[in-house]
Amino acid sequence: MKFRHMFALFVLVTVSLSIFTSGTVMAQSTLQKVMEERGLTEKDVLAAAKTYVPTGGRDDYVVFSSGGQSGHLIVYGIPSMRILKYVAVFTPEPWQGYGFDDESKAILAQGRIMGKDITYGDTHHPAISETDGDYDGRYLFINDKANPRIGVIDLHDFETKQIVANPFFRSAHGGCFVTPNTEYVMEASQYAAPYSHDFVPLEKFNDEYRGGLTYWKFNRETGRIEAENSFTFEMPPYSQDLSDAGKGPSYGWGFNNSFCSERYVGGIGRGRPPFEAGCSSKDTDFLHITNWKKAEELVAAGKVTKVNGAYLITMEQAIQEELMYLVPEPKSPHGCDVTPDGKFIIVSGKLDSHAWVYSYEKIMQAIADKNFEGYDPYGLPIIALHDALERSVNVGLGPLHTQFDSEDGVCYTSIYVDSQITKWNYRTGKILDTIPIHYNVGHLMTMEGDSKTPDGKYLVALNKLSIDRFNPVGPLHPQNHQLIDIRGSQMQLLYDMPLPLGEPHYAVAIRADKLHPVINYRTGWNSRNDERSPHRSRAGRERTVRNGNRVDIYGTLIRSHINPEIIEVTEGDVVSIHLTNLERAQDEVHGFAMYGQNIQLSIEPGKTASATFTADKAGIYPYYCTEFCSALHLEMQGYLLVQPKGYKAAEIQIEDGTKYTKEDYEAQVATNIATQDVINQVVGFITSHNYQDFATVVALVEDATDQLGFADEVKAKSEAAAAEGDYQNAMLWANQWWQYQVKTADLGLRAKTFLEQNGAVKIK
Amino acid sequence: MKFRHMFALFVLVTVSLSIFTSGTVMAQSTLQKVMEERGLTEKDVLAAAKTYVPTGGRDDYVVFSSGGQSGHLIVYGIPSMRILKYVAVFTPEPWQGYGFDDESKAILAQGRIMGKDITYGDTHHPAISETDGDYDGRYLFINDKANPRIGVIDLHDFETKQIVANPFFRSAHGGCFVTPNTEYVMEASQYAAPYSHDFVPLEKFNDEYRGGLTYWKFNRETGRIEAENSFTFEMPPYSQDLSDAGKGPSYGWGFNNSFCSERYVGGIGRGRPPFEAGCSSKDTDFLHITNWKKAEELVAAGKVTKVNGAYLITMEQAIQEELMYLVPEPKSPHGCDVTPDGKFIIVSGKLDSHAWVYSYEKIMQAIADKNFEGYDPYGLPIIALHDALERSVNVGLGPLHTQFDSEDGVCYTSIYVDSQITKWNYRTGKILDTIPIHYNVGHLMTMEGDSKTPDGKYLVALNKLSIDRFNPVGPLHPQNHQLIDIRGSQMQLLYDMPLPLGEPHYAVAIRADKLHPVINYRTGWNSRNDERSPHRSRAGRERTVRNGNRVDIYGTLIRSHINPEIIEVTEGDVVSIHLTNLERAQDEVHGFAMYGQNIQLSIEPGKTASATFTADKAGIYPYYCTEFCSALHLEMQGYLLVQPKGYKAAEIQIEDGTKYTKEDYEAQVATNIATQDVINQVVGFITSHNYQDFATVVALVEDATDQLGFADEVKAKSEAAAAEGDYQNAMLWANQWWQYQVKTADLGLRAKTFLEQNGAVKIK
Repeated sequence: MKFRHMFALFVLVTVSLSIFTSGTVMAQSTLQKVMEERGLTEKDVLAAAKTYVPTGGRDDYVVFSSGGQSGHLIVYGIPSMRILKYVAVFTPEPWQGYGFDDESKAILAQGRIMGKDITYGDTHHPAISETDGDYDGRYLFINDKANPRIGVIDLHDFETKQIVANPFFRSAHGGCFVTPNTEYVMEASQYAAPYSHDFVPLEKFNDEYRGGLTYWKFNRETGRIEAENSFTFEMPPYSQDLSDAGKGPSYGWGFNNSFCSERYVGGIGRGRPPFEAGCSSKDTDFLHITNWKKAEELVAAGKVTKVNGAYLITMEQAIQEELMYLVPEPKSPHGCDVTPDGKFIIVSGKLDSHAWVYSYEKIMQAIADKNFEGYDPYGLPIIALHDALERSVNVGLGPLHTQFDSEDGVCYTSIYVDSQITKWNYRTGKILDTIPIHYNVGHLMTMEGDSKTPDGKYLVALNKLSIDRFNPVGPLHPQNHQLIDIRGSQMQLLYDMPLPLGEPHYAVAIRADKLHPVINYRTGWNSRNDERSPHRSRAGRERTVRNGNRVDIYGTLIRSHINPEIIEVTEGDVVSIHLTNLERAQDEVHGFAMYGQNIQLSIEPGKTASATFTADKAGIYPYYCTEFCSALHLEMQGYLLVQPKGYKAAEIQIEDGTKYTKEDYEAQVATNIATQDVINQVVGFITSHNYQDFATVVALVEDATDQLGFADEVKAKSEAAAAEGDYQNAMLWANQWWQYQVKTADLGLRAKTFLEQNGAVKIK
Repeated sequence: MKFRHMFALFVLVTVSLSIFTSGTVMAQSTLQKVMEERGLTEKDVLAAAKTYVPTGGRDDYVVFSSGGQSGHLIVYGIPSMRILKYVAVFTPEPWQGYGFDDESKAILAQGRIMGKDITYGDTHHPAISETDGDYDGRYLFINDKANPRIGVIDLHDFETKQIVANPFFRSAHGGCFVTPNTEYVMEASQYAAPYSHDFVPLEKFNDEYRGGLTYWKFNRETGRIEAENSFTFEMPPYSQDLSDAGKGPSYGWGFNNSFCSERYVGGIGRGRPPFEAGCSSKDTDFLHITNWKKAEELVAAGKVTKVNGAYLITMEQAIQEELMYLVPEPKSPHGCDVTPDGKFIIVSGKLDSHAWVYSYEKIMQAIADKNFEGYDPYGLPIIALHDALERSVNVGLGPLHTQFDSEDGVCYTSIYVDSQITKWNYRTGKILDTIPIHYNVGHLMTMEGDSKTPDGKYLVALNKLSIDRFNPVGPLHPQNHQLIDIRGSQMQLLYDMPLPLGEPHYAVAIRADKLHPVINYRTGWNSRNDERSPHRSRAGRERTVRNGNRVDIYGTLIRSHINPEIIEVTEGDVVSIHLTNLERAQDEVHGFAMYGQNIQLSIEPGKTASATFTADKAGIYPYYCTEFCSALHLEMQGYLLVQPKGYKAAEIQIEDGTKYTKEDYEAQVATNIATQDVINQVVGFITSHNYQDFATVVALVEDATDQLGFADEVKAKSEAAAAEGDYQNAMLWANQWWQYQVKTADLGLRAKTFLEQNGAVKIK
């Protein structure tokens, strides 16, 4: 900090600053003064201006980043680097109700391993669905390395819809990568294990432990993976790693690399050198090349048999049908990246300083010529390096992953040991620029950087350490994503972004205008299977249905009450509470938490969500709304009464703690009339302006109209009670009438402010 | 966006910009060009410059925000608004291993409700520990509203150390608030319920349902709450809400407000008006005033009896001992805020447009004079409003919460319905400024704003809706914290910050230089109880201990291997894996995940963490490190072998998949010698500069020296094997020697880059 500050002062005395001193409203707080106070250099201010997104502005790109061991997907914006959402995939998350409502519990149950609930995931590589090799913004896939599974997220609502568990693998790092039309999602195994779920001694490692690569069939119509139509390539017990799908000329092929092709089994506790020694002794590992298009035909022709209930293409079959080949690659590689034109595959070994550029054309020629330098111990043909390589380029110590620029041939490689990004040209082999990062970068990402048409513009370095970058928060540090401007000839560091939860490994960035998420659901919607919920309810149709000791409550939520407000069940009942959010307005989410039953639901507008539990102990269980939804949000409450078996209600009624008179009623009505005057004024303002040109205001007006409609309903109840001389209820309903007026006024005032701030004009 | 852009262009043509055009390196990318491209106004650029923190810089304030229904605590920096960490408190979180390792499972088990695991919390109000009324940065407390519990976080490592469950309440919104020396942590109940855990019909609401306020005794020495020395005030079945402790003159007293003092019980399903109507019918609710100092003396004197195992001061006793009073307050209030000087209490009702300023002195006078206007239905004395009120100030529609400026008398109130912040003076009643926010603010926060000496400077509006503020991410929106500059006479909006997980309710900001978290633990440390772990191990002492079917593995972790790398157990064994991270270097965390057993640990330098499970199915379970820790991180792996009962190992050995010759060994040694030359050059650079002036570099050099020491150890093993003609092991150990060299080089290069970037100078 001391040094930064000194440098800043130096810049300030040598550069004349005249901006913002010309008598504007900002005069008293000029940029120069702020720079002095905060020790900012001119470079800092430029970076600030390049990344700052003003209130109400939008980011240009949306990033989907793995959440590492958090089991979530992280969504953030570029250039602001603001995190917009954590989407729960493998880990229960109460804010989203994920793993708490029955509907999402069913998704998590799909991911059970040997019948056991696994309540986390080690997410690594997200992939956006593609159409003709370009991101289409429809779906997102992400893998769990620890328990090999794939999560499917629908980007129309940013919810996890499906989890599939791999039928063969015991770990899978090399996913997800998609084929150019999302025909398949690729998932490669990592640590070799037997395909059976039985014990097989390590002594049989070479013979019975296996790696592999699964091509998961994706159905774009249903938005779900079809496990029954997916197939897996059996592979040697090398540690298969990252993958990429061919595109353009290489369409129909898949590429994935590996480490520990030494097939070394460590055992440091037994005096053997550790895995890390034995897994990096050879100079090369193997790039695996698979023909998924031809494999698909074999499957369709009924020529592939099922093992563990899923199609398995054995190595024997792959050799016989000419589906799989190997090429040596630099040892312990990480990235495996097909160039945008589909002509080259770039591989880097972390223990080599070169990026190796393979030619798809040369590989195909060698295959056509059956020009192999030999066969691996399993009989897989090996293409000689010199027959497949276009060139190798010295990019730095510990190259890892390569992504692409919009400019033809230009690419960027993350350099782990040297802690830098190297910009180079894979067509010429020329190094173009380098920039240091803090510290030890893993993957990197350019905008739409592994699509057919990368956008370039920005690069994010996904750094593994943050050490001295941020305010300290204890021994467990945040990760650090550094945003780099790559639009000029020299790369410029713009921003350091701490990642507060989970260690992201890989990320993908899509142009924001390709995403079109909804703001609400069709009424009574089960968002997890995208069908109308059989448990939905609507206003006035709330009901309780009992069948033996099973009780179903069909309730609704609206600002600001839960219907029903009192639920009575008997000790031992199995209770399902099904709640439908009646709101249509954007962002009007209601939550639902209940004491002692581990229930926390998030019910977005239109959604129906359910919670099932056993009322195993008599007692009083308050429940309430957990999303601040209106001024009377705290009063959005209720009681579950679990009565002892055999309990008979007494004949007494609930006695109101406060009694109201005719005068109370009349005073409330007077207030309501005054409030209506305020509302009318606001309405007058809105309708005298061109509010219909502002979608936000139109939505607010619609919502306000709804609220005022509700006010009319309860006003009628109030007046009916008053007519009967029941001033207790007349007063209470009159107050509810006022509550709806307050909600209306709230919306109206928001609309008015919006019009004032956004240049609305008066209409004649 | 369209309007913003037009406004930006307007500014650009009317203001002459000459900054950054004077032939510096930045010449080609001037600020003006960036503003044009991005449609930024000069106000935007100033806001950007006021909030941007360059790489390696620090924020001035650290915010601790509730994570709402996520059950976590959110930590972020001001002014950058970057989120630094989610600290898991009530919800299991795998990145932190929270709820996955045995040590943290013990913390979560403290929070069980009626014996049931509750896997979330609805966190509302964090409080930093105080010394003499000022934040001291030592501890943090946060409440769970849904299942009334308090979490205790130690800020020396940002970990949750304790959860206590309230013995009386069924919900508790009104916590946490601390007394000026953190003698007590206040927690008020919300929805009234019987104190017993039995069923009590709602008809007995007035007589047997109760509210309350617990003063949890905190022990600063142990850093833990002492449930056995805590006491609770029995209160009427009003919905008690937020609290604050008196300070200065009002030290010894506590204040907490309430809503629904109507004691209305809704029942919309039964045709009754909803809670929201009946809970807001009266014009006033009650501010509760309690004398905790005198209550503490009664407890110490043995005059308070225990109920449910905890001290309970009944209303009868409170009346008799003159411990509790009521004052009317505007209906449905939310904030209850003692002024920095301790002389006034500010309360706002959400359905009233006034902030009401109560005088502590007047309240005490009324109490001394026994000047009461009456008694509530439970016999609690009520002080008349006019005898307690200093003034009321019209601050806007829906005032909610007030925080304070460094300037005497100046305060800020969040205005929910009007969606604005009002700046006013509680001594004069004068309104000073207002600023609109987007939209519907709940709480707000100034820097150290509820301490004895607020810093002012910034204000954060914790908005409940974000609607049109950010890129859309589906029906469930992020929350929006808006940063406002309050240093000038007019408030200025600086930044919109999306909250990506959970709905924060309240937040506290502390000066960053008051926090001094550690970067590692003492070796073999159980971080949850802050004691040396009986399960620790150290290098060379790794071992497996079997007792019947119980197996304890005492292992270690270091870049980049897990010791042991192979674990053998028998089907049915209960297995505990205890792992100690041997690293000392900052940020060198290792994770530990295992297939199929729901294990994911985070083991920071020095920590010992354990995972216990039943190996209930024979098979092969890979495990690996889940924090990217070095170039060979992926190779940090191992296998748990669960053998069938009665299994006898065959007499064969593991056969290495690759065989090495003398030539392989010699080639590796040649590589190692060359690598050592590189290391020596880097060391030469470092030691020829004033590296000892840079703490970061000193730490790196220490770590590098360790790694090189490890290299020497395995070099010796390699040479010994070679001397015996065992080139297989000679080669493997030589490779491990090289691995340590790579780690050394990595650290050395980082140190070198740091020195180059931070102006190190050559020494003679």
